[in-house]
Amino acid sequence: MISVEDARARILAGLEPTGGEVVGLAEAAGRVLAEDIRARLTHPPHDVSAMDGYAIRAADPQPRRVIGAAPAGHPFAGEVGPGEAVRLFTGSVVPAGADTVVLQEDTDRSGDEITIRETIRPGQHIRRAGQDFRAGDVMVPARSWLNPRRIGLIAAANHAWVPVHRRPVVAILATGDEIVLPGEPVGHGGIVSSNAHALAALVRACGGEAMVLPIAGDSIDAIAAAAHSARHADILVTTGGASVGDHDLVAPALATLGMQLDFWKIAMRPGKPLMHGMVGAVPLIGLPGNPVSSYLCAVLFLKPAIERLLGLPGAAPQSVPARLVSDLAANDKRADHLRCRLHVEPDGSLRAEPFSKQDSGMLSALARADGVIQRAPYAPAATAGDVVPVLRFDALGG
Amino acid sequence: MISVEDARARILAGLEPTGGEVVGLAEAAGRVLAEDIRARLTHPPHDVSAMDGYAIRAADPQPRRVIGAAPAGHPFAGEVGPGEAVRLFTGSVVPAGADTVVLQEDTDRSGDEITIRETIRPGQHIRRAGQDFRAGDVMVPARSWLNPRRIGLIAAANHAWVPVHRRPVVAILATGDEIVLPGEPVGHGGIVSSNAHALAALVRACGGEAMVLPIAGDSIDAIAAAAHSARHADILVTTGGASVGDHDLVAPALATLGMQLDFWKIAMRPGKPLMHGMVGAVPLIGLPGNPVSSYLCAVLFLKPAIERLLGLPGAAPQSVPARLVSDLAANDKRADHLRCRLHVEPDGSLRAEPFSKQDSGMLSALARADGVIQRAPYAPAATAGDVVPVLRFDALGG
Repeated sequence: MISVEDARARILAGLEPTGGEVVGLAEAAGRVLAEDIRARLTHPPHDVSAMDGYAIRAADPQPRRVIGAAPAGHPFAGEVGPGEAVRLFTGSVVPAGADTVVLQEDTDRSGDEITIRETIRPGQHIRRAGQDFRAGDVMVPARSWLNPRRIGLIAAANHAWVPVHRRPVVAILATGDEIVLPGEPVGHGGIVSSNAHALAALVRACGGEAMVLPIAGDSIDAIAAAAHSARHADILVTTGGASVGDHDLVAPALATLGMQLDFWKIAMRPGKPLMHGMVGAVPLIGLPGNPVSSYLCAVLFLKPAIERLLGLPGAAPQSVPARLVSDLAANDKRADHLRCRLHVEPDGSLRAEPFSKQDSGMLSALARADGVIQRAPYAPAATAGDVVPVLRFDALGG
Repeated sequence: MISVEDARARILAGLEPTGGEVVGLAEAAGRVLAEDIRARLTHPPHDVSAMDGYAIRAADPQPRRVIGAAPAGHPFAGEVGPGEAVRLFTGSVVPAGADTVVLQEDTDRSGDEITIRETIRPGQHIRRAGQDFRAGDVMVPARSWLNPRRIGLIAAANHAWVPVHRRPVVAILATGDEIVLPGEPVGHGGIVSSNAHALAALVRACGGEAMVLPIAGDSIDAIAAAAHSARHADILVTTGGASVGDHDLVAPALATLGMQLDFWKIAMRPGKPLMHGMVGAVPLIGLPGNPVSSYLCAVLFLKPAIERLLGLPGAAPQSVPARLVSDLAANDKRADHLRCRLHVEPDGSLRAEPFSKQDSGMLSALARADGVIQRAPYAPAATAGDVVPVLRFDALGG
């Protein structure tokens, strides 16, 4: 059995980032940028007014004569001469000759004349050309997740199209004679396929494209045919059938396709039977069949794998510290992941309350959990009040 | 000028949740559930084996005779009598007569006979019928965000269709003679429309549907026509043109459509000119034109509004505590929002480093920020090391 860290490193080592594709700016949010985006223009393009007011020459004596107005988008064509002023609005280009903007509310206007009531600082209320960015500046570097603010910045840099990494296609194969698709009639001893659909939602939340394959029954031919149909996927994920029982057929079925097995057991609970290898050119992650193990292994291994395919490092999910509400026994040789509730203290710190039942078949408990307490192999016993590392589900795509 | 809290309460008060629509389970992630989802079956449906092993009667003497096997999905038809055993796999139905499962690896098998090498606990390794959930149980309550784990649970409860709140349609109107769409030629004094596209991405990240209207120039007719075209939207959001200058035409344009103005100034920086009212049956949120103000007001007011429309309470974005890296001056009467970098300490606590420049025209600085330090009206001066509330952008849709 290899460690969680070794398993992740070995899975990531075989992955190459997807190529780029071009998408419209409106579809680019949630994608990972494939190339640096550089500004196509300078912003502000000229010295512009930061406020509603008047463009003036600071050194002139009072009063000043208003010779025109320059709404945003309609720059004043002339020049501001001695004793002159031009009405400006937020974003208006500061006309030639002027060096300062005075707020409208700090002036008294009578006909064409304004008198300034407040002390002014020469150069005030002007946003200088290029203060935000200059043509050629890198606005958003390659390998950035595109969030709404970065989308705004790419727009401001005058790009309508954005090069992003293609979403990795993750083929998801559930196996087992006993499972049926949701909504279908369930036979005696049968259960509904839930892992594949939870995994598909997680894949999408991680930036991948989920391809849920038809369920393969417990036969080598059926599993091999399904896996073959995923030969153009970026990753093949199986769920179930990866244990050691006589009816765990995934490994023998993939062997008929020439699978190169890398490992199939990790020192982790829940989730020991995790399989990894290459099926032709397609990396395989064989997840356990029970829902809690399947989901946790997906968070710990599949999510980083998708990130690596998206051109990102694909690091271990980041844990946060939390104070234990109850005692924990010493851990054995397998890294453990205890489902827990999290409570936020007024100072922002977390308290973690492990569930008393940690059965890996309890999907309802997983859905109620806020995260898992990470217990390293051979972690000593811990008592209430101790600080332990926790993976928060809300920070991991849900 | 009203407070941020009053403004939010007044915006939320006018909003009614959208109706339900039915979507396929595969499309339900990221939506808000409109009705309780109840289990259509009991899980496990019967007592099932938690492990690979043998179903036995605990009280019987050794050895036991294996009379059959029951792979998952193929329950054993007979009964386990005295001295008998049936081979089971994880998830197999425990056959009638048996009361205990013994692990395969804890047995020695010779032909048809098994001998158990370890002490057994009667009833061990059986997942009881209904241990996860029972038919009729509420699996996911109405008004829950659907994350991958809940999608899995809904699948397990045997639902292929999910009733969710319709995504609220948020019409976004950028106004101004000086702005052009991204990628288009930019004239002298012109700038590229960025707010509308950042807002659209934020709306989508919050669960809404963004409808970006064509840019309206600085004319009452153009703005009124654009607003009229949004008469079936759930919210109309304008950006720019909401200040007090002669060329701020949004309010007069909407007045021609009979807008009932609620308020148009809030005690907040950046973002003072925030407008709220009703344009016919459509709630209006008039955002400031500069990009930092526009985005922050969207996070503080539009995000909760979308949540309210999705059937959720629509609370203020949750702040987290962070320790100041540098001193802050006392605040004036307006709630302030200082863009900052956040650093995570090894103990999980945050340090907040305010940017030295807080110009609300600096979109590039907003994109680089990790969040904003919230400064209440009249907050006293703060020194490095003090704890202040921070809104983390990564917890707010980016």
